[in-house]
Amino acid sequence: MRYHAVTLHAMRLLLLSNSVDHGRGYLDHAAEEIVSFLGQVERVLFVPFAARDHLAYSHNVRARFLALGIEVERAQPDRASRGAVERAEAVFVGGGNTFRLLDRLQRAGLLDALRRKVLEGTPYIGASAGSVIAAPTLKTTNDMPIVEPASFEALALVPFQINCHYAGPGASSSHMGETREQRIEEFHEENDAPVVGLREGTWLRREAGVLKLRGAPGARLFRRGCSPLELSDGADLSFLLEDPAT
Amino acid sequence: MRYHAVTLHAMRLLLLSNSVDHGRGYLDHAAEEIVSFLGQVERVLFVPFAARDHLAYSHNVRARFLALGIEVERAQPDRASRGAVERAEAVFVGGGNTFRLLDRLQRAGLLDALRRKVLEGTPYIGASAGSVIAAPTLKTTNDMPIVEPASFEALALVPFQINCHYAGPGASSSHMGETREQRIEEFHEENDAPVVGLREGTWLRREAGVLKLRGAPGARLFRRGCSPLELSDGADLSFLLEDPAT
Repeated sequence: MRYHAVTLHAMRLLLLSNSVDHGRGYLDHAAEEIVSFLGQVERVLFVPFAARDHLAYSHNVRARFLALGIEVERAQPDRASRGAVERAEAVFVGGGNTFRLLDRLQRAGLLDALRRKVLEGTPYIGASAGSVIAAPTLKTTNDMPIVEPASFEALALVPFQINCHYAGPGASSSHMGETREQRIEEFHEENDAPVVGLREGTWLRREAGVLKLRGAPGARLFRRGCSPLELSDGADLSFLLEDPAT
Repeated sequence: MRYHAVTLHAMRLLLLSNSVDHGRGYLDHAAEEIVSFLGQVERVLFVPFAARDHLAYSHNVRARFLALGIEVERAQPDRASRGAVERAEAVFVGGGNTFRLLDRLQRAGLLDALRRKVLEGTPYIGASAGSVIAAPTLKTTNDMPIVEPASFEALALVPFQINCHYAGPGASSSHMGETREQRIEEFHEENDAPVVGLREGTWLRREAGVLKLRGAPGARLFRRGCSPLELSDGADLSFLLEDPAT
C-alpha cells in the first residue's frame, strides 16, 4: 500500500510494548508520555477487542485515563462503530490476544476506517497487541493463535514488524530452549520486513515524520541477513520509515 | 468431520511432544517406542516442511532412523508427493514451525491425502509441530505465525487440541509473566476442544481404539470450564477420543 508523503507526515503514533510495567499500576510507566502525546485531546476511543471482557477492560482504562483528565469511549465490535472511529479525537487500542483483536476489527469492518483515520492525523496509541497491529501483519506476535482471523494483514501504519515484550538476547521464551531472537530469525527465514523487538518499558513515538524510541531498557532491531542492532533510549529510527513499499 | 468407527479403530498414531530431550540425541528418548510402534515397517516417508532446510533436516532424520534399521524417504513440498504419501508404509512429520508446516502441506495439496492414508491405518509419527497438526487445528501451537496458512484446520486425527513442550503449572512462557496455562485458558475463552499439554519427554500412542499417555513427566488436560487435570505415565486417555464430532 502507498501513501502520499504529506499523509505520512501527519501520522501520530505512540506504540507501547506493554501496559503494565514491573509491578507498577496500569499504564503508570507511560502516563507522562501519553499526556504529552495527546496534548489537547479530551476524549479517547478505546478499542478493547483483544480481551474477552470488553466492559471490565474499559472500566479499568476509563478510570486510568480519567486520572489523566481524559474521557474514554468504548468501541463496540460492530459496523456501527465506524461512526465512532470517524468522530474520534484519538484512539487507544489495548493489549490482550492479537489474533482476537485483529479478527474482531476485521469482522466489524473497522480496520480500514481505523487506518484511514490515523493516516489523517488522529493520534493512535497502542499497547502490546494494539502496537503489534500497527505493523503490516501480526506475524511477530507472541500470542497463541486462539482465533483464526480472515487475514494476517494489519494496519500497516509503519513498514516494519513489531515484537512486544521483547526479552533478550539470551532469555528463553515460549518454546523450551528457544529464545525470542530465534523466533524472529525464523520470521526472517520467510519474510523481509525488519522487526523491532520492544523490551518492556519502551515505546515508539512517531510524529512529524520522525520515529523515536523511548524507554531505558531499549530495543533490538532485526533485519534479514544482518546481525541484530541494539537500540537505545532516544534513538532516532526514522530510517525505518523509508521503506518504499509504504 | 465424521469417520466410521471401523476406520477410527484402524488408526495408529505416535505423537511426541519433542524430538530432542534434555541434552540427549535426536529422538533418543523415544527410539525404543518408535521401533515398537513401527514393527515390521522398513521405510518411512519423512515430511520436513516445518523446517526451512528440508535436505539438511532429512539427512539427520535418515541417519537416526538408519540406526534403528529403518529407511527414510523425503517428501517433497509439491503435488507430485501425493503418490509418495499413497505408497508410504509409515509417515513421520518432524518439528519446526507449525504455521510453515501446515502452509506447505496445504499448498502441496497433501493434507487430505495424508489424512485419508492415516485413517486407513498407516502409522503416523509426529514430533512437536508434527504432533500439533494431528489435532483439529493449530490453534494451540507455541510458534510464531511467520507464515499465513490458508486455514488453521489441520489433520484432525484426534478430536482434541495438543500443546507440545508444555511447561507448567508455574513456569512462565513467551509473554513476560504469562504462563502456558494462561495461554491455554485464553484458548478456552474462544474454543471448546479439550487441550492436552504434553510435557517434554512424553507422547501419546493411539492404536486399536485406545489412546495412552507415556513418559515420566506426564501431561495436563485442560477442558473449558473445568480445573486442569494432571495425567500420569501410562494413563488411558481413550475417553478423549469419544467426541461425537469426529
